Amino acid sequence: METARPVAIVGAGLVGTGWALVFARAGYAVQAYDPVAEVRDRILPWARDSLAELAAAGLVQAPEAILSRISVHDSLEAALSGAFYIQESAFETVAAKTEVCLAIDAGMAADAVVGSSSSGITASRFTETCAHRAQFLIAHPVNPPHLVPVVEIVPAPWTSPAAVEMAADLMRAVGQVPVRLTREIDGFVLNRLQGALLNEAWALYQDGIASLADIDATISHGLGLRWSFIGPFETIDLNAPGGIEDYAARFRAMYAGMVRTPPPGPWPDAMIAKATAERRAALPKEGLVQRRAWRDALLGRLAAFKKLNRLAD
Amino acid sequence: METARPVAIVGAGLVGTGWALVFARAGYAVQAYDPVAEVRDRILPWARDSLAELAAAGLVQAPEAILSRISVHDSLEAALSGAFYIQESAFETVAAKTEVCLAIDAGMAADAVVGSSSSGITASRFTETCAHRAQFLIAHPVNPPHLVPVVEIVPAPWTSPAAVEMAADLMRAVGQVPVRLTREIDGFVLNRLQGALLNEAWALYQDGIASLADIDATISHGLGLRWSFIGPFETIDLNAPGGIEDYAARFRAMYAGMVRTPPPGPWPDAMIAKATAERRAALPKEGLVQRRAWRDALLGRLAAFKKLNRLAD
Repeated sequence: METARPVAIVGAGLVGTGWALVFARAGYAVQAYDPVAEVRDRILPWARDSLAELAAAGLVQAPEAILSRISVHDSLEAALSGAFYIQESAFETVAAKTEVCLAIDAGMAADAVVGSSSSGITASRFTETCAHRAQFLIAHPVNPPHLVPVVEIVPAPWTSPAAVEMAADLMRAVGQVPVRLTREIDGFVLNRLQGALLNEAWALYQDGIASLADIDATISHGLGLRWSFIGPFETIDLNAPGGIEDYAARFRAMYAGMVRTPPPGPWPDAMIAKATAERRAALPKEGLVQRRAWRDALLGRLAAFKKLNRLAD
Repeated sequence: METARPVAIVGAGLVGTGWALVFARAGYAVQAYDPVAEVRDRILPWARDSLAELAAAGLVQAPEAILSRISVHDSLEAALSGAFYIQESAFETVAAKTEVCLAIDAGMAADAVVGSSSSGITASRFTETCAHRAQFLIAHPVNPPHLVPVVEIVPAPWTSPAAVEMAADLMRAVGQVPVRLTREIDGFVLNRLQGALLNEAWALYQDGIASLADIDATISHGLGLRWSFIGPFETIDLNAPGGIEDYAARFRAMYAGMVRTPPPGPWPDAMIAKATAERRAALPKEGLVQRRAWRDALLGRLAAFKKLNRLAD
């Protein structure tokens, strides 16, 4: 990967600033832009705080050098200038994505690739009329991207294989873990897996089988431990003497028997209200901000743990 | 909790020996029994190896003292003698469970509680004819129990509330994390959550959306990181500015839209064969045993990490 040309960050709230850290940490000059002046003013202070945490966890050396590679610009044109890759993290509505992508399309280098941070909206819904639409795709991070490495690369039907290849290579080069989808699907892979688990968790809660806290504990003190370093398929591959085939032979009838028919519907209001009361009793609303900071600090320490144990890729 | 009376382990393969470590580590005298002489002969050597790993991870001091609390007996009667809690880990079929529970029933102290290691078979299917059936319940661990703390406590319809209470208190006292189910349900909570995620993962794989390895990566480099210390409900509580209620308002339509209708059926043979080829290319069958040892060593280090970061309970 060339590091001679810069990366552009368009839309620089928490997600965009996390992306700026990912690229700057890997040695790239990063040109960040956000249309809102107050958001622009927060980029560098927030990047500085995050770098201090990364340094404390032993994940980066020389945080000042990394910070110095991030420049903040007050025009889109300036941010796009010379960029070979553009990460767009605008507000996630079709209208906002369409507007920002058309603006990027008009100002980008002819050979640049554009990745959109989108957790569920597919690229075909907002890049169709772009002149460079073959160079647009989804690069879906988990927040915050500088602490959680997975990135879903999802092409629109008109995205070129070369653009997909380039984005995946770049993500790998900067230390992220690209996951390639062969085609668009609502929710991509990550949120479909999360959704399947959440739908079942809500149904168990609604049926009164266990408390919210106890359902959480089956993951955070059970399944989630293995899943933090091996995925669900490798987990079952190791869970039967003869591997995944043996596991399937032993357990597929059991899992087929647990499928809900009809499937669970949308989460009901009354259930959400009950769950909200249970969560707010455990953690008052005023505590959410601090708890998020705690989560991110732990994700940093877990990243350091995984790096130390050679689990980072 | 009284530590004056011993705990009995009935069925002492890998799961039973893991349980022996859990109780011995917490200060209990443990009386272990298995009907098979070769299995009995492996209990202490395997416990010694596991204790060495726990000591290396900083999770136990004085491994020899812990080992000395485990005694191996060649009769069920001797193992049950004086025990106030009996953890049964016989082979998981209704026939095997019924036989061992009737034998325990005949030899147990009148006030003892019996927990069965079962990952899916409910206690009502094998304890109905026991004289002490009000004292029998499911205590479902994740393998290996001395490294993964969650334990599902699942009563049969005839289990007494006092027995449930006692088992949950004991699990907490020995450093496990008890999860209480209000009533029996196939697969309990843990395997229902795992099953929901696996069914979706298989369906995505079958549809050709992503490779097995890439689907795994969305968990092991993505969702699984947060889930190793906060559960799925706390995860979404922290993922919207206003908490779980706000998250539900933003995303429930998206998740409802991803539900498969009709629900996924049993995992098809051809898909399993393809997945097996993909897994065996990544890890030959001869490597499974070593990879399992690697997983367990990492679970030990992760347990130490969580303890250090005060995430262990």
